[in-house]
Amino acid sequence: MRATVMFGAHDVRIQNVPDATIVSPSDALVRVTRACICGSDLWPYEAMERSEAGRVMGHEAIGVVEAVGADVRQVKVGDFVIMPFAYSDGTCAFCHEGLQTSCVHGGFFGTAQVAGAQAEAVRIPLADGTLFALPVGPDHALVASLLTLSDVMGTGHHAAVAAKVGPGTSVAVVGDGAVGLCGVIAAKRLGAERIVMLGRHPDRIALARQFGATDVVSERGAEAVERVLELTGGHGVNSALECVGLAAAMQTAIGITRPGGAVGRVGVPQDATMPGSQAAFFRDITVSGGPAPVRAYIAELLPDVLSGRIEPGRVFDRVVGLDGVPDGYRAMNEREAIKVMVKP
Amino acid sequence: MRATVMFGAHDVRIQNVPDATIVSPSDALVRVTRACICGSDLWPYEAMERSEAGRVMGHEAIGVVEAVGADVRQVKVGDFVIMPFAYSDGTCAFCHEGLQTSCVHGGFFGTAQVAGAQAEAVRIPLADGTLFALPVGPDHALVASLLTLSDVMGTGHHAAVAAKVGPGTSVAVVGDGAVGLCGVIAAKRLGAERIVMLGRHPDRIALARQFGATDVVSERGAEAVERVLELTGGHGVNSALECVGLAAAMQTAIGITRPGGAVGRVGVPQDATMPGSQAAFFRDITVSGGPAPVRAYIAELLPDVLSGRIEPGRVFDRVVGLDGVPDGYRAMNEREAIKVMVKP
Repeated sequence: MRATVMFGAHDVRIQNVPDATIVSPSDALVRVTRACICGSDLWPYEAMERSEAGRVMGHEAIGVVEAVGADVRQVKVGDFVIMPFAYSDGTCAFCHEGLQTSCVHGGFFGTAQVAGAQAEAVRIPLADGTLFALPVGPDHALVASLLTLSDVMGTGHHAAVAAKVGPGTSVAVVGDGAVGLCGVIAAKRLGAERIVMLGRHPDRIALARQFGATDVVSERGAEAVERVLELTGGHGVNSALECVGLAAAMQTAIGITRPGGAVGRVGVPQDATMPGSQAAFFRDITVSGGPAPVRAYIAELLPDVLSGRIEPGRVFDRVVGLDGVPDGYRAMNEREAIKVMVKP
Repeated sequence: MRATVMFGAHDVRIQNVPDATIVSPSDALVRVTRACICGSDLWPYEAMERSEAGRVMGHEAIGVVEAVGADVRQVKVGDFVIMPFAYSDGTCAFCHEGLQTSCVHGGFFGTAQVAGAQAEAVRIPLADGTLFALPVGPDHALVASLLTLSDVMGTGHHAAVAAKVGPGTSVAVVGDGAVGLCGVIAAKRLGAERIVMLGRHPDRIALARQFGATDVVSERGAEAVERVLELTGGHGVNSALECVGLAAAMQTAIGITRPGGAVGRVGVPQDATMPGSQAAFFRDITVSGGPAPVRAYIAELLPDVLSGRIEPGRVFDRVVGLDGVPDGYRAMNEREAIKVMVKP
C-alpha cells in the first residue's frame, strides 16, 4: 500500500510499504478515508534525525473498518470510525478516568513503534478501546469536522478544560494554528464571554473571529502581554490556552493570565524546563494540560458537530491526495496552509 | 521598640528601632504576643545582599490591637487577632475571590517596604481587610496552633487544595519542614487515604506519622521517586505537595505524581524556570499553587483548631524571646529546630 514516510527533517516521501494487516487479535484494520497533517508533525519535519527505515506518519484519521482480530467485540467490519491519535485499551484505570492518553497499554500512532495513518490503511491496536464508531457514513457532509475529533478539536477542548474555561470567563488563545482555532471554538462553546486570539495571519484571524474571538492581538512577546492586560482591565484573562509548545508562548501565556487563573497547555513542550515558574507562582496561576484524551471527548463533542453548532472542519484550507502530502508538509510549515486534509 | 533586623546573609540582630505607629487611617497597631521564624525567612538568611538599613523580619504573628486609624471599622482596640503574612484590603476583586495574596492594594510583611512582626509591635496596613479577630484571648491554651493560621497551616492547606486532595486520594509531601508537616495535617483533614512523607529527620518523621502520614520515604531524588512509585502500584500519587521551593523538589514532586494528578506547590521557587515541564505535560499533570491566601482559610480551619481536631501548633519545638531570635534562625537553618516560636 502507499503511505507517507518521513526519513528526516524536510524529507517526506510517498512510498510503497507492506500492507497494514491484523497482527494481534485485538487489532482492527481501517481503510483510511480521510487523514490530515498535524501541527505537531512539523516538529519532526523540522528536526527528525535521519532514519534509514523511516517513519510512517499521521495520527489523525477517519475510515472504514475492513477487518478485525478474533478478540475484537465492539467494532465491526464496515463501521465508519474515528481513530484518536492515541490508542488505548479502554479498560485500565486511566481509561476509566477518561485519560486514555495515559493508558497503561496504550501508545501513539505515527511513531517509530506504530505506523501512522497518512496512508491507504492503518492497523489499529486495541481496536475496541481505541475506535469510536460513528452513527453516519463516510460520505457525510460534515466529514471534515468529524475528522477533527481525532485530534485538533479534542485538543482545543482539552486546552479549554485544563484552563478552566467556563461561563462568563475571559480567555486568550496563544497560537493561531488549527489547535488554537479549535481552542476558540471550545472556549466559545464552554461559555467564555471574551476570547482574545493572539495571532498575525489574516486568514487565521478571520477564521478565529468567525469562531467567536472577540479581540485580536497581533503583537508578540512583552508587547502582546501588555496589550492583553490593557484589554482586560490590567489583570489578564482567567484562562490562557497555550497551543504552540515553545518557551516564548508559555511565557506569554503566563504573562497574560490573571492571578488565580489557569493556563491550559496542549502545545507539545519543546524544552525540558518551563519558563515563568516564579511569575506563575507569585500569582497563584495553575498550569495544566498535556496530550488530550480526545477519545473521551468524542461523545461530548459529536452532537455539536453533527448539529452544526460547531464547525471545526473549517480549519482545513487545503485538500490533497497522498501524492500531495509532501507539499502539504511544506505548505503548513511555511504557514501557507492552516491545516491540510489528506484523501488517500 | 525592639525588633529583629536582618542586614545580610547570616546577620540577624535584635535592635532598637522607632516604635511602630499608625501611619495611614486604615492602619492598626498590634502588640505582638507571639511571632515565629518561617522556613522562607531562611532564603534571605542564606542569600540576602548586605543592606545598611536592614530589614525588620517576620510575617507570622498573633497579638492584641493597641490602636486603630480613623478609617478602621471592623477591628477594635483590644481584639486578639491573627496577622496573615500578607496584608489585603478585603474589598478588591481578588480578595472577594479569596485570593488575598493578589490583593491590588496588598503586600507582604517583613519586606523592604513593610516592617515585620519579629518585634514588640507591628503596623498593620489595611487592618480591616487583613486582621482576623479571634473569639478567644491571648492566653488561650491553643495559642501555638492559632499562630500557625498566620502562615504555615494555611500554607499546608493551600498546597493540599492546589493538589486537589480529596477523600480517598493518595498524597505525597515533599519537604519535612513545618509547612510540609502542616501539609500532612491538611491532607488527612481533607480525607486522603494514604499520605507519604518524604523526609529524613527522625523528629520530623515522628511528628508526620502522628499527624497522619502512613508511609515515610527517606531516599532522595530518583531513588525517592522509585520508592514512591513502588508504594503506589507503579503509577504515583494523586497529589504531591511541594513544600520546599528547590528545583530538585519540584522534579521529585512531578516524578511521583500519577498521570492526571496534581502538584500543589507552596515552596517559594528559587529558580525562574520549572524543571520537569515535559514530564508533567506527557502525563497531564497539573501544577498549581503559590503564596497561600491564608486570610481566606482562617474561617475554615479555625473551628478544627479550637476543637483540637488538628494540632498544627505541635510544629513548634522551640520557644525564644527576642534575644533568642538570631540563634533561632541558626537553629532552623541547621535543621536543629523544626520551627521557632518567638515571645517578644
